[in-house]
Amino acid sequence: MATVTLKSDAEAEADPRVQAVFSDIRTTRGSDFINNFWRGLAHDPALLERTWTGLKAVMGPGTLDPLTKELIYIAVSIAIGCPYCIHSHTAAARAKGLTSGQHGEFLAVVGMANQTNALVNGMQIPVDAAFKVGEGS
Amino acid sequence: MATVTLKSDAEAEADPRVQAVFSDIRTTRGSDFINNFWRGLAHDPALLERTWTGLKAVMGPGTLDPLTKELIYIAVSIAIGCPYCIHSHTAAARAKGLTSGQHGEFLAVVGMANQTNALVNGMQIPVDAAFKVGEGS
Amino acid sequence: MATVTLKSDAEAEADPRVQAVFSDIRTTRGSDFINNFWRGLAHDPALLERTWTGLKAVMGPGTLDPLTKELIYIAVSIAIGCPYCIHSHTAAARAKGLTSGQHGEFLAVVGMANQTNALVNGMQIPVDAAFKVGEGS
Amino acid sequence: MATVTLKSDAEAEADPRVQAVFSDIRTTRGSDFINNFWRGLAHDPALLERTWTGLKAVMGPGTLDPLTKELIYIAVSIAIGCPYCIHSHTAAARAKGLTSGQHGEFLAVVGMANQTNALVNGMQIPVDAAFKVGEGS
Amino acid sequence: MATVTLKSDAEAEADPRVQAVFSDIRTTRGSDFINNFWRGLAHDPALLERTWTGLKAVMGPGTLDPLTKELIYIAVSIAIGCPYCIHSHTAAARAKGLTSGQHGEFLAVVGMANQTNALVNGMQIPVDAAFKVGEGS
Amino acid sequence: MATVTLKSDAEAEADPRVQAVFSDIRTTRGSDFINNFWRGLAHDPALLERTWTGLKAVMGPGTLDPLTKELIYIAVSIAIGCPYCIHSHTAAARAKGLTSGQHGEFLAVVGMANQTNALVNGMQIPVDAAFKVGEGS
Repeated sequence: MATVTLKSDAEAEADPRVQAVFSDIRTTRGSDFINNFWRGLAHDPALLERTWTGLKAVMGPGTLDPLTKELIYIAVSIAIGCPYCIHSHTAAARAKGLTSGQHGEFLAVVGMANQTNALVNGMQIPVDAAFKVGEGS
Repeated sequence: MATVTLKSDAEAEADPRVQAVFSDIRTTRGSDFINNFWRGLAHDPALLERTWTGLKAVMGPGTLDPLTKELIYIAVSIAIGCPYCIHSHTAAARAKGLTSGQHGEFLAVVGMANQTNALVNGMQIPVDAAFKVGEGS
Repeated sequence: MATVTLKSDAEAEADPRVQAVFSDIRTTRGSDFINNFWRGLAHDPALLERTWTGLKAVMGPGTLDPLTKELIYIAVSIAIGCPYCIHSHTAAARAKGLTSGQHGEFLAVVGMANQTNALVNGMQIPVDAAFKVGEGS
Repeated sequence: MATVTLKSDAEAEADPRVQAVFSDIRTTRGSDFINNFWRGLAHDPALLERTWTGLKAVMGPGTLDPLTKELIYIAVSIAIGCPYCIHSHTAAARAKGLTSGQHGEFLAVVGMANQTNALVNGMQIPVDAAFKVGEGS
Repeated sequence: MATVTLKSDAEAEADPRVQAVFSDIRTTRGSDFINNFWRGLAHDPALLERTWTGLKAVMGPGTLDPLTKELIYIAVSIAIGCPYCIHSHTAAARAKGLTSGQHGEFLAVVGMANQTNALVNGMQIPVDAAFKVGEGS
Repeated sequence: MATVTLKSDAEAEADPRVQAVFSDIRTTRGSDFINNFWRGLAHDPALLERTWTGLKAVMGPGTLDPLTKELIYIAVSIAIGCPYCIHSHTAAARAKGLTSGQHGEFLAVVGMANQTNALVNGMQIPVDAAFKVGEGS
């Protein structure tokens, strides 16, 4: 069930731009597997290219370690409520070394954050002056 | 502006349960500063106690490092839209060593996660079998 | 700060449809006070009429008591993140008898609901058969 | 799977108010098809009437074209995360002429909006004076 | 489909902390049924204990009646978009006496709250001074 | 109040990458005005470049008209709850010709979409087979 069809490999090969992105995904990940997200995006080659290029840049090597980035990604996906994203990035986090113990601890932090966010919003707490940046700059 | 008043130190001292939590916050953090969230919660001593106890357990030492936990907290706060929480946990992350470069990279991951979540939800992509856990177990 | 101007009483009097709604709000509530929400909506008389008519029907006498309805309203407003709505419906709940103790207990329920929702979504728990209605009907 | 049963045509015929709404939906849309949303709402005839009357007024002829209204509807449904709504309004948009190319462009706008919203919220950017309306009015 | 496996009774019995929580759930509810949420949480005994203890305290006897608390819980779950939570707490509300008529009225309030929240946020209505608490305190 | 400082023109000139983006924004928009969003993003030149490049591509000429794209943007911003985004894109929509009447009609659609989304999620309505795309493909 989806609002678009998913492109098969044969269909992807018929469009050079889609084919190039699929090929780069396979090379970058060292795996032949192309997950459904990219097969759906393939209907709009420009959007597919921009999304893959952006994701590759953002999730690639940087100052935060790869597992931390995946945990941030899952936290966002839980708060937004995207079942596919939660599944795919939890699988990615496991592939990057997430242990069962860390997963439980991660869920505890996410649960606590959702709880205190609701309490703060419910009370409409004003921001402490100590937390503000760039006043007067 | 708030939906509750914020308890001053003098008011907190009038209730032993509130006083005990405020004292533990100061000891745990090694600082005399009590931010507005706890001053708002102080209207309900039982809720104050449960929230502080839970937060202390979840954000304390474990298998994820303290800065990673703060980044997860901020990611949730951005997705939910809690200005106070974003301010307070960004300040906490900076106090735990978050650099300006890491902050930018963190925001890039959060922005990308929000973008791809929306694309996935818009297309209603079905979960790949490879991402599912515990089928048949 | 707003994306529309707020209609003053003088401006409202210039449009019979707006004037009629403002008059009914005052009669229904037994107060001369028209809060900013209605002054903003007054730019679109048809939307103003539909919204007030719907709100009056939904929040009026029924099988749920008026305070319970206000608490449901605040719970939604916290989850969505609408500062105006949280403020206005908390004030309305207080006017309908909400005590400080009930407010704390209400916030505790909302906080717990946000926490367990996040845990459930994070684990993507399948719905127990016992909770499903209307299977086979 | 649902929290209410869905009313069949036979059940709908047993209640004149439900029957009248179902009949008007069929006439308005020029189709015999009644989708599940209305069959679920039929448990509360007053809510069914108010919802259909409101939807008919809002989505009917006006100053915005029908396809634009459907795209606005889908954008909201994606941000909220309502799979049924995304499916039904994407189908409605296609019936009103949405092309595959426009769908891709629409998704790109929605994705970009979600990304920049997250960046803005993460930085807690203050609103530029130039964007404010109605100051001093 | 889930991101964790669900613990069977046999697996739960192998961990005394899990076993103790499961036992207390059964005693508290007067039923042998343990729903999937707790079976998923059982992977992290500390999180399981904290969550059950918190839920039991918050949803137990207090100044708000049990059915009102369930309605608040469902309202949050709808706004966040957690299908499991909506199903489980609607079932719980029915078990606590929610009638079909009250369910319809509840949904009407939730629908109206979502509508006016969106209108308020769209117009960015400033909070009336009359709704603010604790100014100057 | 923000979690980052906003770069002044003088500070922007000190970094060639930031300067190049600011210059392109001015040329593209035919205005010297750089709004606060870009001044905040300027702390991370790579993120600034990617975001501006993406936004320019997505909001530029295509198969959807520019005003429709702005309305989609505002709809997302309202649902997410980003005050800055609502203000800036409502201002942009007005600059592209949005009339007061269209604004009211737009808000009515957004309000209705939020209402019916909540009703659908509350009832957990199953997707009609007629709305599904790509089954069996």
